[in-house]
Amino acid sequence: MSRTQPHYFGAGPALLPAQVLRQAAIDLLNYKESGLGLGEISHRSALAVEVVDSAKATIKQLLSVPETYEVFFLQGGGTGEFSAVVYNLLASFALKTGKKGKADYLVTGSWSQKAAEEAIRLGVDVNMAVDARKWSANGKSYGKIPDPSSWNLGNAEETAYVYYCDNETVSGVEFPYVPEVPEGVELVADMSSNILSREFDVKKFGLVFAGAQKNIGMAGVTVCIIKKQLLARPKDADLVALGIPLAPLVLDFPTIVNNNSLYNTLPIFNLHIVGLTTQLLHDNGGLKVQEALSNAKAKKLYGTLDSAPDGVYNCIVDKACRSRMNIVFTIPGEGKEKAFLDGAKARGLTGLQGHRSVGGIRVSNYNAVSDESIDVLVDWINTFAANA
Amino acid sequence: MSRTQPHYFGAGPALLPAQVLRQAAIDLLNYKESGLGLGEISHRSALAVEVVDSAKATIKQLLSVPETYEVFFLQGGGTGEFSAVVYNLLASFALKTGKKGKADYLVTGSWSQKAAEEAIRLGVDVNMAVDARKWSANGKSYGKIPDPSSWNLGNAEETAYVYYCDNETVSGVEFPYVPEVPEGVELVADMSSNILSREFDVKKFGLVFAGAQKNIGMAGVTVCIIKKQLLARPKDADLVALGIPLAPLVLDFPTIVNNNSLYNTLPIFNLHIVGLTTQLLHDNGGLKVQEALSNAKAKKLYGTLDSAPDGVYNCIVDKACRSRMNIVFTIPGEGKEKAFLDGAKARGLTGLQGHRSVGGIRVSNYNAVSDESIDVLVDWINTFAANA
Repeated sequence: MSRTQPHYFGAGPALLPAQVLRQAAIDLLNYKESGLGLGEISHRSALAVEVVDSAKATIKQLLSVPETYEVFFLQGGGTGEFSAVVYNLLASFALKTGKKGKADYLVTGSWSQKAAEEAIRLGVDVNMAVDARKWSANGKSYGKIPDPSSWNLGNAEETAYVYYCDNETVSGVEFPYVPEVPEGVELVADMSSNILSREFDVKKFGLVFAGAQKNIGMAGVTVCIIKKQLLARPKDADLVALGIPLAPLVLDFPTIVNNNSLYNTLPIFNLHIVGLTTQLLHDNGGLKVQEALSNAKAKKLYGTLDSAPDGVYNCIVDKACRSRMNIVFTIPGEGKEKAFLDGAKARGLTGLQGHRSVGGIRVSNYNAVSDESIDVLVDWINTFAANA
Repeated sequence: MSRTQPHYFGAGPALLPAQVLRQAAIDLLNYKESGLGLGEISHRSALAVEVVDSAKATIKQLLSVPETYEVFFLQGGGTGEFSAVVYNLLASFALKTGKKGKADYLVTGSWSQKAAEEAIRLGVDVNMAVDARKWSANGKSYGKIPDPSSWNLGNAEETAYVYYCDNETVSGVEFPYVPEVPEGVELVADMSSNILSREFDVKKFGLVFAGAQKNIGMAGVTVCIIKKQLLARPKDADLVALGIPLAPLVLDFPTIVNNNSLYNTLPIFNLHIVGLTTQLLHDNGGLKVQEALSNAKAKKLYGTLDSAPDGVYNCIVDKACRSRMNIVFTIPGEGKEKAFLDGAKARGLTGLQGHRSVGGIRVSNYNAVSDESIDVLVDWINTFAANA
């Protein structure tokens, strides 16, 4: 089976390391000489439990996850988590305070916006502590994170959590810092598109989640890291009395954690790809090394775009919050973007179209994208600019 | 990559056809010579949409799904559906009647029991129209479907749906008929472990669902078939006013259907395995052929067990509702079951342990289990009995 690693910059599901895919293809047919493929064995068999335990252990090690936190896996991706956050964080807040908590959302792009909308739909009193659209020229697009001094955050008496998206995949906005939140309020982060591309201090968070299909694996698995004390909650009847919706079992964190992520049938094959990818990251030196690689690739791309003749490329996002993962730009002028994409394709550079909602060009620079791919792309960005 | 098809009778995730796995392994590395694996491309790309459309078309064709029904895919498996049924069926009933509907559950095994428990947890007024444990010797185990004349079903004024599990994987109880329900009440079936093993009349159902990991694919994808008119519903505020919980977006059927199962990131690779498996079923002659094969394999197994000397094997389940998919029996006598399993293993026959909650032996006879595997097993059942 042939596989030449492509120069692919798609935003997700995204490129995976060739050696991970080669191993996974073998394991799909015959896992560890068991005679069965990994998609065919019981999720409760010893081999499957080992996949769960080993992926968990590697993630714990990579992120130095403290003993006071749990790592677990479920289905449903980011969209599932938008709802799960509401059910689970309001439940633990109710135990602490006897009240239905409010929630602060830092809306810096379309994913945090969707998360806020889902919370509102599910009956949460949502405070848009940041609505970054207000700061944009047209009042619609994103590209800036307002200064924290302007954020209008609640307090631990009333507010269960502050929610934000660490990297907005569509607009290319990434937090360059972990937001500070009031003492006693839990910080919740969607890290779907930048997890394991840099270090972060888990202890600052109540919950971190990530769909696997960008930096760490294939669609079908969501990775969560939760502060253990948030798994405690009142009885269902007490939640109902407070007007807090109950989680469906597949999104109920205590149910999942208490069953080692195997209450229902987890797609073990998909999780195995997470395990292989994280093991590779570990073997390559861990997150310090990956962070340096990611930063260097991003710096090279932005540097190339910034040094092009004036007006050829337009990076909309504020320099302070430019995403290292999704480098977004436009090419002003009739037909220019098409010409850029066509020329890129002719050089084997694909997956560069911007998100359907915003257009333009988007270079996704996830962990599996090699220096070589970046160099070929940089060369094309320079060539195109020189001939523009 | 080597693959000798094993004699494997695990209950799920279960055996897949070798040719499906071989093709899937190729497609994991390089799908249709695109240069990218199927786990790496956008779920909204043309290649991915084609996977969705083609799996849908094949299932429609195999089951002669009428135009008034939709086939769609989501994550979360059977456990996700236990909750989804509540949200979605109560919502459409509310549109029809302006009321919060009740629900009838036919509890014939542990899966329908779990479904009923989840409905109760989510606030549904559940009527256990059948509780088959009452009919068992110890008041705990399953093995019988009481006569429909004894069922205590509601009516269309008050009852939104009648729920049942077509094949109970743990206890090995399968409905030999489609339950008749009162006019205007919707029939909901969990067919996770027997879908595509026989024909059925889709028009008799409001909703049919199945986790893919037994007869049709790999864990990570749930297949649903719904009557289109059940997708209509009142405004969220009206549902909340009636005390009907809102579905999280990942379990909200209209959201999923209106986006061709691609509202959020569907695991396209896992769905592709469903597509390959169903295409193979189609190429082999469709469900008439598969039904005959499944029935013949099951008949041979039960015949062998029944013709063994008295007392060697004990089939608990009523002959009238013996599952064709999960043939469950015990072997009375200290150490006998272990001896049976050890001898089986020595002959390359694996996956025969009963479910951890009931013990005994369970032979899962899904579509991918070959006549040859059944013959080797039958030979061992006879040999063991002769020496018992």
